[in-house]
Amino acid sequence: MELSELSLAAAADAIRTRRVSPVELVDSVLDRIEQVDPDLGAYVTVTAERARRSAREAEHEAAAGRLRGPLHGIPMGLKDLIDVAGTATTASSRVRADHRADTDSTVAARLAAAGAVLVGKTHTHEFAYGLTTPQTRNARDRGRVAGGSSGGSAVAVASGTATFALGTDTGGSIRVPAALNGVVGLKPTYGLVPRHGVTSLSWSLDHVGPLTRTVEDAALVLSALAGHDPRDPASLSTTAADHRPGPGTDLTGLRVGVPRNYYFDHVDPEVEAAVRRAIDQLQALGARLVEVEIPMTRYIQATQWGLMVPEATAYHEQALRAIPDLYEADVRILLEAGELMPAGDYLRAQRSRTLMRQEWTRMLNEVDVIAAPTVPATAVPTDQQTITWSDGTVEGVSDAYVRLSAPANITGVPSLSVPVGHDTAGLPIGMQLLGRPLGEAALLRAGHAYEQTTPAREPAPAA
Amino acid sequence: MELSELSLAAAADAIRTRRVSPVELVDSVLDRIEQVDPDLGAYVTVTAERARRSAREAEHEAAAGRLRGPLHGIPMGLKDLIDVAGTATTASSRVRADHRADTDSTVAARLAAAGAVLVGKTHTHEFAYGLTTPQTRNARDRGRVAGGSSGGSAVAVASGTATFALGTDTGGSIRVPAALNGVVGLKPTYGLVPRHGVTSLSWSLDHVGPLTRTVEDAALVLSALAGHDPRDPASLSTTAADHRPGPGTDLTGLRVGVPRNYYFDHVDPEVEAAVRRAIDQLQALGARLVEVEIPMTRYIQATQWGLMVPEATAYHEQALRAIPDLYEADVRILLEAGELMPAGDYLRAQRSRTLMRQEWTRMLNEVDVIAAPTVPATAVPTDQQTITWSDGTVEGVSDAYVRLSAPANITGVPSLSVPVGHDTAGLPIGMQLLGRPLGEAALLRAGHAYEQTTPAREPAPAA
Repeated sequence: MELSELSLAAAADAIRTRRVSPVELVDSVLDRIEQVDPDLGAYVTVTAERARRSAREAEHEAAAGRLRGPLHGIPMGLKDLIDVAGTATTASSRVRADHRADTDSTVAARLAAAGAVLVGKTHTHEFAYGLTTPQTRNARDRGRVAGGSSGGSAVAVASGTATFALGTDTGGSIRVPAALNGVVGLKPTYGLVPRHGVTSLSWSLDHVGPLTRTVEDAALVLSALAGHDPRDPASLSTTAADHRPGPGTDLTGLRVGVPRNYYFDHVDPEVEAAVRRAIDQLQALGARLVEVEIPMTRYIQATQWGLMVPEATAYHEQALRAIPDLYEADVRILLEAGELMPAGDYLRAQRSRTLMRQEWTRMLNEVDVIAAPTVPATAVPTDQQTITWSDGTVEGVSDAYVRLSAPANITGVPSLSVPVGHDTAGLPIGMQLLGRPLGEAALLRAGHAYEQTTPAREPAPAA
Repeated sequence: MELSELSLAAAADAIRTRRVSPVELVDSVLDRIEQVDPDLGAYVTVTAERARRSAREAEHEAAAGRLRGPLHGIPMGLKDLIDVAGTATTASSRVRADHRADTDSTVAARLAAAGAVLVGKTHTHEFAYGLTTPQTRNARDRGRVAGGSSGGSAVAVASGTATFALGTDTGGSIRVPAALNGVVGLKPTYGLVPRHGVTSLSWSLDHVGPLTRTVEDAALVLSALAGHDPRDPASLSTTAADHRPGPGTDLTGLRVGVPRNYYFDHVDPEVEAAVRRAIDQLQALGARLVEVEIPMTRYIQATQWGLMVPEATAYHEQALRAIPDLYEADVRILLEAGELMPAGDYLRAQRSRTLMRQEWTRMLNEVDVIAAPTVPATAVPTDQQTITWSDGTVEGVSDAYVRLSAPANITGVPSLSVPVGHDTAGLPIGMQLLGRPLGEAALLRAGHAYEQTTPAREPAPAA
């Protein structure tokens, strides 16, 4: 196995025991970027020089016995909405052509302090305002979408060009590409990971979180990211904590909610079958399955858009007036639509969210985790605009991809996407585990138990 | 002294010791209503029959030794936004001509359970959307405004037609009329008193609270009102508590913030002098005065209106389309304006509030209480539209009346208005004490100490 393919935990172990040096690991990842990224397009910028310098420092520290923890010397990609001092934050947009960050975002600073090594900034749908990443190809099938908006981060982790990466998630933008590329994606509880220095899409829905190769890796990164920062007004007053799941795989006592509505409607049969098999596996590990009724489902889409559209427009207000032509047409149209939206619609979306949160809190009193598909379909070909369901319903690809992930953004509950196999075309399928606010422990425990007890099935050869 | 003039605490003591029966007390108040209310116009509806029946029941209970507490048999007025089963809630509006409540609001139910006796529903500016109460005359000078929107409640308490009353406060509507009529008004911490069954003006700014003759009385009523109710989405998870201040008047250790900006700008010199005298009295009682800088003052007005206008419109959306002509012109114009307001303005007002709350929290770490005028001027003649300040600035009367009270609505901090004397025309002056969220104890302690140690100055004879 190439060093660039190691899980974070395995790489950390290798560095800790001096079997691998940070320099070797980072070089392996940089080599891999040179080989595959020209074709995949995961990166906006590769910071090779900086990465080699950081790797050497990490190596010196390691040689001197000063290990900062499990992220010490680990190569990472950061979605290009995340400020890193001295590098551009382009948001994959011409609007940001001249941007340069003076100071680190909170997450970049925390990861640097933990010893992680930046290898590059990854592509996003322009300003994260979409469920695809047009610049980036699917890691499994280059004719298919990467998903988005954190497509670059997901493809980097899936293709060996970053050991882990960060994404942002406003309607599913960590979990959707994680599912479509076969990696783990965690959208933490709203407010758990500070967003200071991260370009905003919609402040009341935005989250920052990790994309990784394993659930354990996601827990390791989360442990470095979480904790209060007063510079993010929504930041919760939690202290740093170790989120690593325990070693056991016994899920006795865990109540897993299985939705009887919404999450399995208009879902591809292969996706449904894979997710239900994974749920059976949770049961086999001791979990008790409980049917749950997802509340207020007919308000989900209107609430998501009603919150996101005006908040996005407010952020872009000045640039939209000054330099509208520098935006891509799809994003500019959405931003302009936000200018026409009346206050009453935004207000109703907020009220709906308040009620939805209450109803979800009630539902999540009955179970510890809810298990559901992350997205209703695997990665579609790049030129496909719609999905036709078996009852003849036609749905836009982005509408379909956001449909099952948005509830966790609206309600702020944590959601973890875990790979649970592949369809017959060899495309990855994701299961999301949703939990109570600050209930990351239950998600990570269930996801970790699942992945430890499920042989990584090789997909069928790609078509 | 007439029974109708007793403070709540004195009346409760007289009932407890069987010197006065609830029937006598209620009859005295109903007589007083007959004498003075035709002229004052504090009441929309007088529920005399119901009140006499309740008083007899209270009397039977008292005779049997079953006293429910200090509100047992006490006559009260409720602002006509507050639902009481079997009575109309007109909101002083033709829009509500056919309204009849089926069930009690939370506050009405809690007061009934505590033994209080409803004598009537008091006038409000139509749907509480204004700082006056056109139907009601000032208790001290009938040619002057009562203030609003809880003008009926303030005038009832000031004129002996209710021992206490409830009002609502979205921008100052409890405290403004309290100050202008010489009574105590308490706007509690946002979320402390449930609003279920109370007609909404602006859900994120609305509060329910007492108008009383003394600070001690306000504490007695608050003790009956406060505590969680899940039917108000903003209700805090606090339990019922006894808010009565202790008996002492020593304020040693209390830090009283005196604003160096905003609260004494464009304030009538007689109002300023009376409030500064009252602050000196707090210092004489042992409090330490600390200068404070009020943050973000230039955003206060825009934030208040930016939140209130679209929220009010959302509540009235259907009636506004169906029966617009039943609204008074001033209210209809405000509601229609709300339909034109863009989502971005509402969003900016919410962000501004978030920042303002943080800045106020920081400021309130330095002091326990802030002392300031409640309103910058005493009651103006009914036909006066503007106030001209000494520097030539002209301000609308409503803008002036709301200016010093709105910050407590935006930030949600508690604010208590206490009478601190009269101007040379004999018109009452109010001082407001503001505190930390759930810091009612400090306000009530300071206000109670002040009123116990200050001889009630008789005003000069009215002109």
